[in-house]
Amino acid sequence: MSFRIEDYIYNVKRLVDEELREVLPEVHGAKTKLSEAMRYSVEAGGKRLRPVLAVAACEAVGGEAAKVMPIACAIEMIHTYSLIHDDLPAMDDDTLRRGVPSNHSVYGDAVAILAGDALLTDAFKVIATRGVEKGLAPEAACAIITDVALAAGSAGMVGGQAFDLALEGRQVSLDEIESVHLLKTSALIEASVVAGGRAGGAGERELTALKKYGRALGLAFQIIDDVLDIEGGAGLGKVRGSDERRDKATYPAVMGVEVSKDKARDLTAQAIDCLKGFGDNAIALTELARYLGNRKY
Amino acid sequence: MSFRIEDYIYNVKRLVDEELREVLPEVHGAKTKLSEAMRYSVEAGGKRLRPVLAVAACEAVGGEAAKVMPIACAIEMIHTYSLIHDDLPAMDDDTLRRGVPSNHSVYGDAVAILAGDALLTDAFKVIATRGVEKGLAPEAACAIITDVALAAGSAGMVGGQAFDLALEGRQVSLDEIESVHLLKTSALIEASVVAGGRAGGAGERELTALKKYGRALGLAFQIIDDVLDIEGGAGLGKVRGSDERRDKATYPAVMGVEVSKDKARDLTAQAIDCLKGFGDNAIALTELARYLGNRKY
Repeated sequence: MSFRIEDYIYNVKRLVDEELREVLPEVHGAKTKLSEAMRYSVEAGGKRLRPVLAVAACEAVGGEAAKVMPIACAIEMIHTYSLIHDDLPAMDDDTLRRGVPSNHSVYGDAVAILAGDALLTDAFKVIATRGVEKGLAPEAACAIITDVALAAGSAGMVGGQAFDLALEGRQVSLDEIESVHLLKTSALIEASVVAGGRAGGAGERELTALKKYGRALGLAFQIIDDVLDIEGGAGLGKVRGSDERRDKATYPAVMGVEVSKDKARDLTAQAIDCLKGFGDNAIALTELARYLGNRKY
Repeated sequence: MSFRIEDYIYNVKRLVDEELREVLPEVHGAKTKLSEAMRYSVEAGGKRLRPVLAVAACEAVGGEAAKVMPIACAIEMIHTYSLIHDDLPAMDDDTLRRGVPSNHSVYGDAVAILAGDALLTDAFKVIATRGVEKGLAPEAACAIITDVALAAGSAGMVGGQAFDLALEGRQVSLDEIESVHLLKTSALIEASVVAGGRAGGAGERELTALKKYGRALGLAFQIIDDVLDIEGGAGLGKVRGSDERRDKATYPAVMGVEVSKDKARDLTAQAIDCLKGFGDNAIALTELARYLGNRKY
């Protein structure tokens, strides 16, 4: 058993970072700070969780990593845009992200808004062009664009962010918290896994299993994030306890840290359980779920 | 000669408005103001110029209007998102748009940012799903998504907006103004025309002609907009002379109103000239160019 998930993540992350450098607009010679601001946030670190999940899902159904790479990058671009916009003064007003000044702290609000807009828009171009160039069938590209846009738009991530803002400062139920998490975090994580499956040629039954895996994993991920924000958020690159101070609705705030940890453990087990039909090909997806369940930052 | 361009615009606009009502998320039962804010700006009027151009281009190559309708709506959604974000306090800080309070004036900055993000994201879903459902080949859908994303993203509209902001308050050359207009306005207008052509099954030669038509028309459109901003902008639904007050780089500001009008006339003639090969099918595109060249608001 020589599989080490840390090595897997490291290797995929390197490939993803390389591809990202290629698909992002050139800074050299640009007349504005736009491309610099786009690259700043994409290159400001991050675990590349969504790209790694997309690649692992592609391999779980027997596909080749190269085919899913543009899609993995597009999803990371969309994730990055969402962080830039979330950090804006009009939204969460965070001056720090991934341990460095947030985009608008460096480039100003106007350029930060535009850098987010451009990352989101360019992401769809990357799927539709580079994805297809790398051998993705146009039908699969359209299905992936649909999944990703649904997960990121009004019915997904943006809808979740709007819901989260609407809940701020008032008493919320556990159901409401779960709805926010499913929309704001799980949806795009689920879409990453499903997109990876589609790029790898998954059948309907495999896609259903991957969807359930992604949903459970995404929810576990968010709960653990919120626990870490209380227990020792410095490693997250954010100001520790920042959710609490803003009176954000989180699992640990309502259920306490220990119950939240149990819930995350259950969800991780559920996620792994979805992979039974995949055999050895799903080793990376399985180990990723365990790894994320045990993370301390 | 019973063709009246006013009737054509009126009829297409009605169909587009109907389709937009269907593709936008339901307001009823929503837990947040997001869908309301999205609909507010989409339904706040507007000439539907880009959708009308897409439909006219589709018909110019012998295609059916129904096939291009989802794409026409998606482009209008992208145009609307760009207006919402442009009006934000961090950008142009406009309280009025199309004669009514701008999105953030009604819903606040956070919801306005999210409404723009959601319109942009959902637009790509509309092309990839509803476009394909209406008979668009997945290859054509991918080509259209590429064109539209290129025209709207860092290499197009958003790039132009960033360039425009960078130029504010300093002396600019005519070349710089033209670059801003081509990116900020012409690119998406050109993409509308080309997308309509693609949806209608245009060949490469037709696409090239449509591209040139859209580019010239888009530039003429922007110059006329800027002339009207000086001469009588109230009809535009903006505060009259607002570009001038902000020291925006415009053609009439640098070249004067009369030279600008001549330039717009030349560009309109150039645009119409591109349609020679299309015969009678291009009557709507031809008349649209004339109509836009003569508009007084």
